[in-house]
Amino acid sequence: MKSLLLVAHGSRRRESNEEIAQVANSLCEQVQDQFECTQHAFLELAEPSIPEAIEQLISQGATEVLILPYFLSAGRHVHEDVPGIIQAKQKEHQNVTMHIAPYLGESEDMIALLAKLSTHGGSKV
Amino acid sequence: MKSLLLVAHGSRRRESNEEIAQVANSLCEQVQDQFECTQHAFLELAEPSIPEAIEQLISQGATEVLILPYFLSAGRHVHEDVPGIIQAKQKEHQNVTMHIAPYLGESEDMIALLAKLSTHGGSKV
Repeated sequence: MKSLLLVAHGSRRRESNEEIAQVANSLCEQVQDQFECTQHAFLELAEPSIPEAIEQLISQGATEVLILPYFLSAGRHVHEDVPGIIQAKQKEHQNVTMHIAPYLGESEDMIALLAKLSTHGGSKV
Repeated sequence: MKSLLLVAHGSRRRESNEEIAQVANSLCEQVQDQFECTQHAFLELAEPSIPEAIEQLISQGATEVLILPYFLSAGRHVHEDVPGIIQAKQKEHQNVTMHIAPYLGESEDMIALLAKLSTHGGSKV
């Protein structure tokens, strides 16, 4: 069973964390032909944590977990913190295959998405 | 003259800020039929600041500036800090029209972009 885990930074603002949950819900529908289960997790400041979400996916039967980092730049979180947590969980669960997808900011479609946003015209300040 | 200003949070890591400059460069090429000039700016921790970048665009002849917030969630930065800075600059330069585009995380194309990233398969941890 393949599962997708959207990992975001986490915020002190409840609304920001709820936005992530909504993104994960919408993504779930979009990828349901590839992943039987989609979950979200936060690196810090909010729950579920990444280890908690991975444990939950495994208890639901996940044998493969793809981690999708919802981060814009390749800082310490993307290079060290998230991979470190995943590596520790991978050691604990050697019968589960864990992979990390490219982080959001690395997407080749980002420029086209921004270009489209810029055709919106925007709101007067 | 229409100008586009990509506004990011800014980081203590030089590399993260350089990533933003690269995004703005790539975006510049993509939108050159709509905007004669594309610049980037940081809310904090890095330069140029938003006021500095707006002053530069105006000194280059900008009469319209569209601000594109490179933020994933609608926190205080998106709701208050960035609009507050833009409003102050708008008051100073009443002959320049300033608009704010939807922030990145609000893009209707975000889910499709994430779905595509999740087809990548990812790297083994």
